Order: sequence, then C-alpha cells, then structure tokens
Amino acid sequence: MQDRFAAITKEVLQFRDARDWKQFHDPKNLSEAICVEAAELLEKFLWKTREEGQSPSDAELNGIREEVADVMIFLICLCDVLGIDLLDAAQAKLKLNEAKYPQDRARGTSKKYTELS
Amino acid sequence: MQDRFAAITKEVLQFRDARDWKQFHDPKNLSEAICVEAAELLEKFLWKTREEGQSPSDAELNGIREEVADVMIFLICLCDVLGIDLLDAAQAKLKLNEAKYPQDRARGTSKKYTELS
Amino acid sequence: MQDRFAAITKEVLQFRDARDWKQFHDPKNLSEAICVEAAELLEKFLWKTREEGQSPSDAELNGIREEVADVMIFLICLCDVLGIDLLDAAQAKLKLNEAKYPQDRARGTSKKYTELS
Amino acid sequence: MQDRFAAITKEVLQFRDARDWKQFHDPKNLSEAICVEAAELLEKFLWKTREEGQSPSDAELNGIREEVADVMIFLICLCDVLGIDLLDAAQAKLKLNEAKYPQDRARGTSKKYTELS
Repeated sequence: MQDRFAAITKEVLQFRDARDWKQFHDPKNLSEAICVEAAELLEKFLWKTREEGQSPSDAELNGIREEVADVMIFLICLCDVLGIDLLDAAQAKLKLNEAKYPQDRARGTSKKYTELS
Repeated sequence: MQDRFAAITKEVLQFRDARDWKQFHDPKNLSEAICVEAAELLEKFLWKTREEGQSPSDAELNGIREEVADVMIFLICLCDVLGIDLLDAAQAKLKLNEAKYPQDRARGTSKKYTELS
Repeated sequence: MQDRFAAITKEVLQFRDARDWKQFHDPKNLSEAICVEAAELLEKFLWKTREEGQSPSDAELNGIREEVADVMIFLICLCDVLGIDLLDAAQAKLKLNEAKYPQDRARGTSKKYTELS
Repeated sequence: MQDRFAAITKEVLQFRDARDWKQFHDPKNLSEAICVEAAELLEKFLWKTREEGQSPSDAELNGIREEVADVMIFLICLCDVLGIDLLDAAQAKLKLNEAKYPQDRARGTSKKYTELS
C-alpha cells in the first residue's frame, strides 16, 4: 500500500509537469502563491465573528476546503523544488516548538514564546 | 506500518492538546495564523531575485524549512477543527483544476484560467 | 503651507534615496513587502478576541502603529515607482465602491457585493 | 484649502457610515482586510518576472491602482477606530528607521537591520 502523502505529492507534480509549469515554479513565486492562497482562505472568515467561523454552512465549508487545498498544493510544489521533505520539516519544527513552548509554562496561554514567563 | 501523514497529524494534535491550546484554535484565528506564517515564509525571499531564491544557503534553507513547517502545522490544526481531510481536499482540488486548466490550453502559460484562450 | 501627504511622501523617498534603495524597489518586491508588513500587523491581533483587539494596551498600540506605518511607507514607495497618485487612487476606488455597494442594499450588511440581494 | 489627506479620510469615513459598516470594523477584522487586499495586490505580480512587474499594461496598472486603493482605504478605517494619525505614524516610523538603518551602513544593501555589519 502506497503512502497517502507520497501519492498526492506524485499527483501534484504530474499535474504541474503535464502543463510544463515547473518553469514558473521558482521558490520566490511559489512563496507568493502560498501567501495569496492563504489570504483567500482568510477571506472566507473576514467580517465574521469567531462563532460564525466555527459553524460554516456546507457551501462555505466547500469554499474553505478548496482554499486549504490550494495552500497545500503550492506547499508541495515549493518543497519539491527546494528538496524539502514537508512532513519531516513539520516533525522537526514540532521538536523545536517543544523547547520553545514547554508544557508547564505554555499550557492554557496563547502568548508568544518570547513573552512566556 | 502507519501512514506518515496520519502520524504527523497525530503528533501535531498531541502537541496542541498537551498545552490546552484547542481553545484558541477556532477557524478564523487559525486562518490568520496560516496567513502570518505564509508571509514569514515570503519574507525569506523578499528583495531577492528569482535566481537568489533558487539557490539559498544552508542557513537560509533551514529558515525556509521552518516557515514551511509552520504553515503545514497550522493547516493540520485547521483541518482538524473543521473536519477536513487535507489530502482528500488537495486531491479533489486537483480534479477541479484539471477542468479549469486543460492540458492543451494551459501548457506553458502562467495565465489564470479566466484568461486562457 | 505644504500638504501633509506630499510632505511625508517626500520624506519617505528621501529616506530611500539616501540609502540607494530604489534599485531593490521594483513593484513585485514592493508588493511582497506590503504583504509581509500587513501580516505583521495582523499578527498583533492573532489569537485575540474581537474585544481584546478593540482595547489594546499602550505598548500594543505602539506596536500596531509601527506596523500600520510600515504598510503606509511601502505603499508610498510602490506608488512612486508606478506613477500612481495614492490619494487619487483611493478616491477613484471609493467612487467604484459607491456603485458596487449602493447604500440601500449594502446598509448594515458585511456581504460582498457579489452576494448583495 | 483643505488638506488632501484629511479630505480623503473624511470621504472614506462617510462612505463607511452611510452604510452603517462601523459595526464590522473592529481592529482585528480590519487587519484581516488589509492582509487580504495586500495579497490581492501581490497577486497582480504573481508568476511575473521583476521586469514584467516593472512595465504593466494600462489594464494591469488599473488593476494595481485599485488594489493599492483598497489597502489604503482599510488603513484609513483602522487608524480611525484606533485613534492613530496615519501620517504621524509613518513619520515617527521613518525616524525609528533612521536609527535602525544608518546611511553609511545601509547604503546599497537590502539586508535587514539585524544583519547589517
């Protein structure tokens, strides 16, 4: 059985290559694309209250799902051109965050690590 | 053998829950977080040329990897609270994009689908 | 008496030119900079409730003021290199918005113009 | 003769109040809006080279002008609800930047102040 993440990564890159789009996919442009898609995701919650954001309609949830997917697709493309293993990177960052946000001091607070007492 | 994406998802959620942070993780705030992290990623390429972005130093690549990871971690958190399967969403979006960007008309151009001839 | 906006614009451009920075200020990079600064502004409100955002401490307000200023400074730089009059542009856009958001249909709703009934 | 910036500020706030929109304009939501508009501005340059960004067509320049205006309009709204004088803030930030980026060390380099030698 193939790993799910490996499978979707392969599909994304095939989609890209079938259109000869790698030529546009330098890291600077891909980071712009991730930013643009992240803002489109945020727009789904603009002017809404926290509570409204927590109970999207089916149509709204569909829209959110598409924007989440766009961010993910460009993340995969960026990691490909830079030779980054996205899941390893996330795991390594969690380790770093363990040190920056010790459980006893970070529990129940949304403060940035630079402000933890 | 456990699926890699399922494994990292589990680690992210354990990290969150060990700090009792789910209370801050409503979709509106998580989308803001994704936007903030995406912009920190973009900042790694700010003022650089396309070429400079393509050949980061080891130190720069480490910084990029951390920002990519932050975006991914918050994507996982957002998908958790909204009940979205991130990989399924990416796959479904690729299908949509197949229709919006037919290979014969999209090949070799960076035009938006609304401008394809 | 000199116009205040003309005066600050002149100061921003003098600051830039005294450092020979115009060479980095192409529109693509400046738009990235505006995005990065806008996200730093947003970060000031991240994880906060609407109410918390409405009553920042003096220290928080200082931080917000600096980020607002950074967005403004780069807007001025972008308009300079593209030959855009920022205040004229804002005025022209208000006129467009008058048509997109007629008072009788837009009053008291945060809906996008494409969704106004 | 009225100050130009004061005049456009007045128009923006009248536009807002004629639609009873101040109720949606808390600082957190306005910062999101600035981020969303900044990303729409960035999208105008996405996939383009630096050179292409420097020579937009008339139609492209119109689009850029509208996005620049949107960022400016929401900046004005945010400053209004927080009691910030936008032009004073920009001037004060320039002063701070003078100290962070001394002319002799910052000239001709795009390095961040934390990396200036």
